[in-house]
Amino acid sequence: MTLKKVSEARCFGGAQQVWSHESAATGCTMRFGLFLPPQAAAGRVPVMWWLSGLTCTEENFVVKAGAQRVAAELGIALVAPDTSPRGVELPGDRDSWDFGLGAGFYVDATREPWSRHYRMRSYVVDELRALVAGEFPVDDARTAMSGHSMGGHGALTIALSNPGWIRSVSAFAPIASPLRCPWGEKALTGYLGDDRAAWAAYDATELLRTRGWAGPPILVDQGGADPFLANQLKPELLEQACADARVPLELRRQAGYDHGYFFVSTFIEDHLRRHRAQV
Amino acid sequence: MTLKKVSEARCFGGAQQVWSHESAATGCTMRFGLFLPPQAAAGRVPVMWWLSGLTCTEENFVVKAGAQRVAAELGIALVAPDTSPRGVELPGDRDSWDFGLGAGFYVDATREPWSRHYRMRSYVVDELRALVAGEFPVDDARTAMSGHSMGGHGALTIALSNPGWIRSVSAFAPIASPLRCPWGEKALTGYLGDDRAAWAAYDATELLRTRGWAGPPILVDQGGADPFLANQLKPELLEQACADARVPLELRRQAGYDHGYFFVSTFIEDHLRRHRAQV
Repeated sequence: MTLKKVSEARCFGGAQQVWSHESAATGCTMRFGLFLPPQAAAGRVPVMWWLSGLTCTEENFVVKAGAQRVAAELGIALVAPDTSPRGVELPGDRDSWDFGLGAGFYVDATREPWSRHYRMRSYVVDELRALVAGEFPVDDARTAMSGHSMGGHGALTIALSNPGWIRSVSAFAPIASPLRCPWGEKALTGYLGDDRAAWAAYDATELLRTRGWAGPPILVDQGGADPFLANQLKPELLEQACADARVPLELRRQAGYDHGYFFVSTFIEDHLRRHRAQV
Repeated sequence: MTLKKVSEARCFGGAQQVWSHESAATGCTMRFGLFLPPQAAAGRVPVMWWLSGLTCTEENFVVKAGAQRVAAELGIALVAPDTSPRGVELPGDRDSWDFGLGAGFYVDATREPWSRHYRMRSYVVDELRALVAGEFPVDDARTAMSGHSMGGHGALTIALSNPGWIRSVSAFAPIASPLRCPWGEKALTGYLGDDRAAWAAYDATELLRTRGWAGPPILVDQGGADPFLANQLKPELLEQACADARVPLELRRQAGYDHGYFFVSTFIEDHLRRHRAQV
């Protein structure tokens, strides 16, 4: 594994870095953001992974969320992966902003040609997890995860599928159920095919019913002025699934907030403090 | 004056807006960012203007600095103008990143063809000031100014030239003396011509000596790992000019920080609290 440091800048007494590496899971060069708080100089620190939404790269959260201030205070590292393979040039991968580049949906594709590279689930859960734990002063046993929109779906489904790894999970405006929204139907049809039974492993509401969640309450912030609220995100489906599965959910509807990073930046501090207390 | 709202998003209980308008000073459509804290709903609030550096638009500070959190707490508005005229297509205005587009240097050009549009000093000090004070719930009598790099030069020179307007000034990694650095020499030659006597009105060290500063101490943060420190920024010239003029300067050399917005975001809170107490 050859890690290459793309950039590093001092930030709130810690270090905001971007790294690149050749990924076996995705068969291409991948980048991720890593913030190491000052406390990491003295030993391993807990870590929050952040999964970004449609069109994002590893950069959006790093530049826009303002999370480093709180992470530096709390002594928690931040890992921000990219949202899809890059540079693999599959037919149609640039045709739309909600499929292909920037839209990996945190699944392992099974349909050609996507199955050769679009393996973001394995990339995050196996490859990047091992790399980060092996190469940096982060404590893998104290991992939280959060994410935004498509990345909120990613955080929820990865946590529910990997409760031995993710000890605390939250989300901002997550896609509650890819089985039941246009973004999810398009992406999962493309990556997994028409058999919806195969989609259930990547649907938070299905995973809540089949696997439950014994971790701390799930925190979800959802903007009330989010243009994707009714048609794509559908937090009421998450609410119902949590109620059915008796999983504690704190769903906060934040009046007036939209889907962007001004919304994320406003509430990221709450999420970080919650995760720090729970991992 | 026709103001057009380009965008608005709720942020820390306030509103982050971008506006556009036809500018008489620059003869083109200009944009600026405006953050209104929650307190602006109840009446006029003090305001900090932010002048950005080379290559920036109105967007950089708005998206990257994380200033809205503190501004919302303190009840201070934030105004972030663009750094040059846009869309005027002068010969050579895209040839370099340190002259022309994104590099207005906050001067009124006197040389053709720049003098027709590159009038960023008048734009900020006369036109945009009047527009903001007239159209939004900000208290022009309680105005602070800060900026970064070229915008730090802008903030210092505008404050020193307009002490009746700017009651408190600070800067991040400012160009201390355009008369004595390559960026300044190139830009001022291009905008003002070869007669260096005309440059003095746009040089903070000269203005300190000729006009002084009776306001509160000037706060300057400078990254110790800033690649432009020795050749372009030269804070020691500012230090010497303040000493000569008996103007109190707090110059903080921040070890390890570079020239970017991770540096700005780390220390913007200090500047905002200082300004809020002084305006």
